[in-house]
Amino acid sequence: MMRNRGVARSLSEFSLIERYFADLTTSRADVVLGIGDDCALLDCQPGKQLAVSIDTLVSGVHFFPDVDPFTLGHKSLAVGLSDLAAMGAEPAWFTLALTLPQADPDWLKSFSQGLSSLASESGIQLVGGDTTHGPLTISIQVHGWVDPAHSIRRDRAEVGDVIFVSGTLGDAGAALQLKLGNIDSSLLSSADQSYLEQRLQQPTPRTVLGIELAGRASAGIDISDGLLADLGHITQRSGLGAKLQIDQLPLSPALQKLPVQQAIQLALTAGDDYELCFTANPGRAEQLQNEFAGEITRVGVIKEGSQIIACDETGSTVDLTDIKAGYDHFT
Amino acid sequence: MMRNRGVARSLSEFSLIERYFADLTTSRADVVLGIGDDCALLDCQPGKQLAVSIDTLVSGVHFFPDVDPFTLGHKSLAVGLSDLAAMGAEPAWFTLALTLPQADPDWLKSFSQGLSSLASESGIQLVGGDTTHGPLTISIQVHGWVDPAHSIRRDRAEVGDVIFVSGTLGDAGAALQLKLGNIDSSLLSSADQSYLEQRLQQPTPRTVLGIELAGRASAGIDISDGLLADLGHITQRSGLGAKLQIDQLPLSPALQKLPVQQAIQLALTAGDDYELCFTANPGRAEQLQNEFAGEITRVGVIKEGSQIIACDETGSTVDLTDIKAGYDHFT
Repeated sequence: MMRNRGVARSLSEFSLIERYFADLTTSRADVVLGIGDDCALLDCQPGKQLAVSIDTLVSGVHFFPDVDPFTLGHKSLAVGLSDLAAMGAEPAWFTLALTLPQADPDWLKSFSQGLSSLASESGIQLVGGDTTHGPLTISIQVHGWVDPAHSIRRDRAEVGDVIFVSGTLGDAGAALQLKLGNIDSSLLSSADQSYLEQRLQQPTPRTVLGIELAGRASAGIDISDGLLADLGHITQRSGLGAKLQIDQLPLSPALQKLPVQQAIQLALTAGDDYELCFTANPGRAEQLQNEFAGEITRVGVIKEGSQIIACDETGSTVDLTDIKAGYDHFT
Repeated sequence: MMRNRGVARSLSEFSLIERYFADLTTSRADVVLGIGDDCALLDCQPGKQLAVSIDTLVSGVHFFPDVDPFTLGHKSLAVGLSDLAAMGAEPAWFTLALTLPQADPDWLKSFSQGLSSLASESGIQLVGGDTTHGPLTISIQVHGWVDPAHSIRRDRAEVGDVIFVSGTLGDAGAALQLKLGNIDSSLLSSADQSYLEQRLQQPTPRTVLGIELAGRASAGIDISDGLLADLGHITQRSGLGAKLQIDQLPLSPALQKLPVQQAIQLALTAGDDYELCFTANPGRAEQLQNEFAGEITRVGVIKEGSQIIACDETGSTVDLTDIKAGYDHFT
């Protein structure tokens, strides 16, 4: 209603979504009608449940305004794919709501290529979108399929279940702190710094692992806000507590070069890693550990109660309040 | 990654989405898992196709920053419901991506009530969302169900089909021009002005009509950008042209008080009415007209070619270039 008509015209769904995004992914047979009508029309998979999640990234809040648009395109989709992985769902379709201050063809081309490469790799198709004029904001909704008996929820952990995480933790947080000057960069080689930067800008959603874990993990979540916070959602919704083994936290070679206290703080409390945290019945734990050796690490166990406690290699309890306070101070 | 941690915490999904939005609509049996996990889990309807659409409203672009949050909540959902209606789909679920400059409890309560009242009326349930810190931006994705043989697409109009519109046209545009001081307010009673304001702020999605038209309309679209622009999408995608009868355009009593040229310009070119424009085989036209008397109006016919032409009551062609130019000048 208050549109700047000149800008609105150049930013219309038709000129932008169709030009830059229409053909960016391989076509799926279940997309009856994609971009270009009032709605997309989609065929469902008999016997499966639809998993959906929407996430927003805001310039200056979730990414630096001058971020490389290719990596921003990648990351915008990775965040949603990570949610599908956390449910054990197979990616199918996504929609894009893109709010832009101006229509910059180079920026759009690069952003859509970043989206495209991850979308193709993941077998997910763009089926609709809306492009509007305003401060740079990206909302992506992802849709996937999961067997009703096999979905991985947050509320199904049981006492004695083993807690696993995928990959390594704290890398994205370290990259951010490095940018902000809170980490001594002389501790890290330029290869380490590139590695951390890559982990922050182009996180790898654990799509294949999530699908493999469906029906085998008892509960799960993706780590977007830090292990303590996200494991806390599992324990809270399952009505239980947990014990973490601090010395078992998987740290990348780069993170291992930081002071140990700083590395552990990042691994426990920094977000944006988009790894999976999941629980499994102890009877399955060894098999999972063998099957996904090098990809997952056992970091703790689900307990009675409502607290998450942490122990070091001597079995002594580590005060997490100090770690969280230390982290806040350190940031 | 760059979150202001204080604000991010108070604006987290958990404090906001759960507090203000979790219980805002009646529960549907097909929602296996709603808000509070990585994804919602949803049961599909056998034999139906899923219709999805995402729309964004940006403060200062699509609404005035000081708009009543109740009506903003209503309108944010109405826009998506209108897309479902345009496909002939029955509403099922929606997700909300809400970006807010601050967490104002009064604003949130009122916004969620506006969403809630329309959601309950429409039988659509909120199943997920993301709340982030940033400039006020609202993206809503709607999901609905349609019989595969009965969906109303833009690309299926045929030569000779009758063109209908629902309701009256140009009211929302008139309300906006009134606000902007481009309409002589002395022509309108205060009741007229309230009526127009209501049409702009709280449009009524044509949900029931859309469902009734499924399988009976040959093509359709909702009027968000103005009749000429939106009918243009039907003709373009159907590879045809159209003839509009200017004297048949349905104008509200309020719009009829404006100079006729201004009223017609608004009815043809102003957006935000969220009425339906659809086409039907001439053999069905009379029955539809009887069945939906008072709700739909016959305004033209689909022709060969690629242009939309307009005639007045004498049969003379009206130059639409002049009307569009006049409108641009008048705004």
